[in-house]
Amino acid sequence: MTYCVGILLDAGMVFGSDSRTNAGVDHISTFSKMKVFEQAGDRCITVMTSGNLSVTQNAINLMELHSRRDDPQGNIWAAESMFDVATLLGRSLREVRERDAAYLSANNIDSSASFILGGQIKGERMRLFQVYTEGNFIEATPETPFFQIGETKYGRPIIDRVVTPATSLMEAAKCVLVSFDSTMRSNISVGLPIDLTWYERDSLRFGLRRRILESDAYFNMIHTRWGEGLRRVFAQLPDPNWDDENATRQYQGEIFK
Amino acid sequence: MTYCVGILLDAGMVFGSDSRTNAGVDHISTFSKMKVFEQAGDRCITVMTSGNLSVTQNAINLMELHSRRDDPQGNIWAAESMFDVATLLGRSLREVRERDAAYLSANNIDSSASFILGGQIKGERMRLFQVYTEGNFIEATPETPFFQIGETKYGRPIIDRVVTPATSLMEAAKCVLVSFDSTMRSNISVGLPIDLTWYERDSLRFGLRRRILESDAYFNMIHTRWGEGLRRVFAQLPDPNWDDENATRQYQGEIFK
Repeated sequence: MTYCVGILLDAGMVFGSDSRTNAGVDHISTFSKMKVFEQAGDRCITVMTSGNLSVTQNAINLMELHSRRDDPQGNIWAAESMFDVATLLGRSLREVRERDAAYLSANNIDSSASFILGGQIKGERMRLFQVYTEGNFIEATPETPFFQIGETKYGRPIIDRVVTPATSLMEAAKCVLVSFDSTMRSNISVGLPIDLTWYERDSLRFGLRRRILESDAYFNMIHTRWGEGLRRVFAQLPDPNWDDENATRQYQGEIFK
Repeated sequence: MTYCVGILLDAGMVFGSDSRTNAGVDHISTFSKMKVFEQAGDRCITVMTSGNLSVTQNAINLMELHSRRDDPQGNIWAAESMFDVATLLGRSLREVRERDAAYLSANNIDSSASFILGGQIKGERMRLFQVYTEGNFIEATPETPFFQIGETKYGRPIIDRVVTPATSLMEAAKCVLVSFDSTMRSNISVGLPIDLTWYERDSLRFGLRRRILESDAYFNMIHTRWGEGLRRVFAQLPDPNWDDENATRQYQGEIFK
């Protein structure tokens, strides 16, 4: 399984991805699911992947191949817009699936894949996209300033509660780590290391690129304090007073047949 | 969508279910997904349902019909074991799906359904089961003292963190409400009212049967305090010190290609 999240803020962008892949429980490996493309002063692009590893790796390889050949179909280093990069990535994904999907499905193997793509190209605003398995894509807006792919649900509530476009890069990065902690606690197939990057608006170079390993003291502290904090908040919730007359009436009657 | 959770504690059992059904976003209704069977002093049984409403309603109706007719196939009021009740419920579900599933799937309608079934019959210990769409079932054990059906993921982390067999009925009921609050916040198709019951071990009568409506002051207080508490714990997490030399080295090298 996979968990990736990308957040678009007024101040910049934050990306996090896990790195556990599994083809059955006895075949678990570590592969980075984050790829960055940086030409300082010109463009900073992050791609994160979920789904069939051969499909996602091949799609990114094809995108790079097209870019090296200065293929007229698109070049990630020359594109003038993140929209063009999203189109290129979607097209590369379609190319791989056209080649491989029938062979995979003949063996009941799922060839679906998706990407989070974000970054900034000089002359354009920061942009964040989610590319679907069919190669189509959507773009984040201020009302929905983040995308998740993979095992998205366990880690979503804290992002829903904390992140708005006005959130700082530091707060958003912390929130991403808490979100990973919740996800990894409930789904062991999402695992460390976590690749984390952040990008400050208009800087056109990555502000932070960090791989968080099992020995990471900060992440371990977050893990401990967050768990303790949740249990403390829970313990402080008052008990209900459900022996009131109104409640007693509710027990009867037709509510519970 | 649906969210139901059943918890088996040393002290008793707690059950919670939402009551929103939807057949498309413009056809949303309120149906209780909890059905209780109580013969005080003899048996206390709770059934909660998820899946196609016609299938789950019909399965429970069939189970009751068999029980009224004193059918040799099984009778919920005469069964000597919760295991027999689980078998009866699974058989009723199979009967409905054998009758209806082909008609539904011909129209691309999903006929899957599942149940949480729990309770106690005089002379036997408390037991908690999950009945799958195929009519087979599993039983909760001390290592896994709860079952969820429907939209299970948003509300799972708090149960994972708080509930053990030693948890009190009151704490478990509070935890169920927090779990519903998280679920409803992230999935609007899970909605109030919540049906909540608890059962004290060996009492052979329900201790609490309550329908929590939108006006419920206690649930609204839980909602507010839990959200505030989470944000407070989050705000108190220290910032990382990622400008250390070790981190700087990690930014370079082959980790991020």
